[in-house]
Amino acid sequence: MSGHPEADIYHRQGMGNRAGFGETPALVIVDFVVGFADPAHFGGGNIAAAIDQTVALLAFARKHAWPVAHTRVVYAEDGSDAGVFTLKAPSLRKLTEASPLSQIVPELTPLPGELIIRKQGASAFFNTNLAGWLAFRRVDTVAVTGCTTSGCVRATVVDAMQSNLRTICVTDCVGDRAIGPHEANLFDMGQKYADLMTRAELEAAWSTAR
Amino acid sequence: MSGHPEADIYHRQGMGNRAGFGETPALVIVDFVVGFADPAHFGGGNIAAAIDQTVALLAFARKHAWPVAHTRVVYAEDGSDAGVFTLKAPSLRKLTEASPLSQIVPELTPLPGELIIRKQGASAFFNTNLAGWLAFRRVDTVAVTGCTTSGCVRATVVDAMQSNLRTICVTDCVGDRAIGPHEANLFDMGQKYADLMTRAELEAAWSTAR
Amino acid sequence: MSGHPEADIYHRQGMGNRAGFGETPALVIVDFVVGFADPAHFGGGNIAAAIDQTVALLAFARKHAWPVAHTRVVYAEDGSDAGVFTLKAPSLRKLTEASPLSQIVPELTPLPGELIIRKQGASAFFNTNLAGWLAFRRVDTVAVTGCTTSGCVRATVVDAMQSNLRTICVTDCVGDRAIGPHEANLFDMGQKYADLMTRAELEAAWSTAR
Amino acid sequence: MSGHPEADIYHRQGMGNRAGFGETPALVIVDFVVGFADPAHFGGGNIAAAIDQTVALLAFARKHAWPVAHTRVVYAEDGSDAGVFTLKAPSLRKLTEASPLSQIVPELTPLPGELIIRKQGASAFFNTNLAGWLAFRRVDTVAVTGCTTSGCVRATVVDAMQSNLRTICVTDCVGDRAIGPHEANLFDMGQKYADLMTRAELEAAWSTAR
Repeated sequence: MSGHPEADIYHRQGMGNRAGFGETPALVIVDFVVGFADPAHFGGGNIAAAIDQTVALLAFARKHAWPVAHTRVVYAEDGSDAGVFTLKAPSLRKLTEASPLSQIVPELTPLPGELIIRKQGASAFFNTNLAGWLAFRRVDTVAVTGCTTSGCVRATVVDAMQSNLRTICVTDCVGDRAIGPHEANLFDMGQKYADLMTRAELEAAWSTAR
Repeated sequence: MSGHPEADIYHRQGMGNRAGFGETPALVIVDFVVGFADPAHFGGGNIAAAIDQTVALLAFARKHAWPVAHTRVVYAEDGSDAGVFTLKAPSLRKLTEASPLSQIVPELTPLPGELIIRKQGASAFFNTNLAGWLAFRRVDTVAVTGCTTSGCVRATVVDAMQSNLRTICVTDCVGDRAIGPHEANLFDMGQKYADLMTRAELEAAWSTAR
Repeated sequence: MSGHPEADIYHRQGMGNRAGFGETPALVIVDFVVGFADPAHFGGGNIAAAIDQTVALLAFARKHAWPVAHTRVVYAEDGSDAGVFTLKAPSLRKLTEASPLSQIVPELTPLPGELIIRKQGASAFFNTNLAGWLAFRRVDTVAVTGCTTSGCVRATVVDAMQSNLRTICVTDCVGDRAIGPHEANLFDMGQKYADLMTRAELEAAWSTAR
Repeated sequence: MSGHPEADIYHRQGMGNRAGFGETPALVIVDFVVGFADPAHFGGGNIAAAIDQTVALLAFARKHAWPVAHTRVVYAEDGSDAGVFTLKAPSLRKLTEASPLSQIVPELTPLPGELIIRKQGASAFFNTNLAGWLAFRRVDTVAVTGCTTSGCVRATVVDAMQSNLRTICVTDCVGDRAIGPHEANLFDMGQKYADLMTRAELEAAWSTAR
């Protein structure tokens, strides 16, 4: 991100510092469901590559017994819980409990004990039990992966920070249908909300920290 | 925004629709405080121009008796409520109750009965009484102004949408220290969370709707 | 409630006033599911009678096109979302998506468009989309029915009030496994959080108000 | 509580278990402000005795470096944030930032670094930064003291449990203007939300656990 033409403004105003690791990390995987892996629906861009990298990070997280949470977008079949988000993006209403599009991609299938969050909003925290689920496990650091970088990942990262969790946005484990917004949102998050780390950097840093 | 090189992806996937007006609007003015109006602290870019436009919009809102809410960032003097946000941006800790930097700019001084929200996070909704304050007034539409577009405005807009309020981001009443992030975030918000309108468009549309 | 031996203290300290009706009411039916209707599981006391009265109130609400929301307690089959509540009351973990015990009682079967909330906590508002669902419909008044009066009804009433909704606890439409706690919680709610009305009083008052 | 005439129903239905200690406790002191210590305003009953006991518990908590949070009820001078709660209890509006009635009682004066929460609702968690403040400190257990047992203490305890924190209601450190509601709410909390312990029991159990 150092190449961003306006990065110096942020530096002069005291932003872009590292929050660093806490004691107990968790992995949050946002909306890696079939419909967001498919360019014919909500996918495209670098999402497929981000899923591949997240497969590896999920194996790492499980090996180290990190709590793991997955999100799905799920709307009621009868439209009863549709709202402003589905006015902006009516196609989201396809994502019902039983729809193939709203199932987590097979290569990231949750194991028993991993949390599966059904959400109607953008953030994995908004109107969900994620914050309390993490609190029960004394998690103070979340690594966020998923899609889209400019949408539900960004919203999740902002809420993780606002929930006072040290937040890492894993740059090669998040993807977006469009690369411009992907890059722009990584910049915003790195300046204000999250530490940006590649998967390799995260795994190395964590292994060193233990 | 039609000129964005990747806008067609969003269009094909069914995003970027208008949510439209509801019945009862409110004006939310995010963080137009002295420190964010001053390029030596958190200001710069097009923030001064956005304040000027917001002065006019505030007059319009008051004339039409819209509920008006203002936000300030306020941290405790003793640092007791500092957290992850102030790890990323330690300079925010200067914004205490008594600091000149955290006072609302004089040209937007709140009137009695307007809500003043003290917040430590990015969003005007997170950990605040804003949603309930709006519910009590049966507000279903919020026009968001303030700064920064890529920071607290974006976070407020996402939460307004998630709170199921029809959300308008008033494009010339929001500003940022850096123009690239300003533009990038307007694009994201317009595609997924908010209707983008200039002040003139908003005022004309509202007057027509009555 | 006038007979409560300590009611005068509340009166002297300025409590126990009426909040009154707003403009747009909704009906919230808390946890009237099979397991809470059955004394062998979580039921007993006056719950059956409260269900009978709620059948009538639901018909009234539908006739007047009030938004209607129902809650169910639903825990994951694999125990992944169990927490402190299930430490206090492990039997709650029986209430899974497919369990007959967690299905809404047949006489209150939701119609399409009515909201069905799955919750793990006590309050219908906590970590759910209820507040936003009501905001989208400009609801400012909620009539709360369900069970138990001393548990999820009380928690829902407190959150409705805290969400700045005028709250009516419908005294013969709420029930509890134990009558002492039922009465004690009606007293608390009436003094501080909700207007207490019987179903007949509510229906008459609403009809008069139109 | 074993003497409660209906306790056996709860026992048969699987409630009333202990949640137990976690790893990191915090002390939350609810609304021990001048106005709630004064029978002429919101006080009376056993509140004075509960303050005395809390003075001792606060010393214990500080000695063991527990995080400590205090709450105050604070409404704006201009009434801008009044709502349903102040319709039910208009006298709450006296509790403004500068009012002597809303100041924490002198014997419990917060030390630097202790959190002071200003709230308009009943619960110390609702619309406040308490959950995140605890998460940042990896707190998983909260001991709740304060007043009133049947009001803001109860609401705080329910939200602590819903936030997945192991919750202890310290029975001789909570007080109420009226003893009937005090006892009734201790019963409810003990059955469903919190472990009931006297100050002496809490201190002994914690010292043993180390």
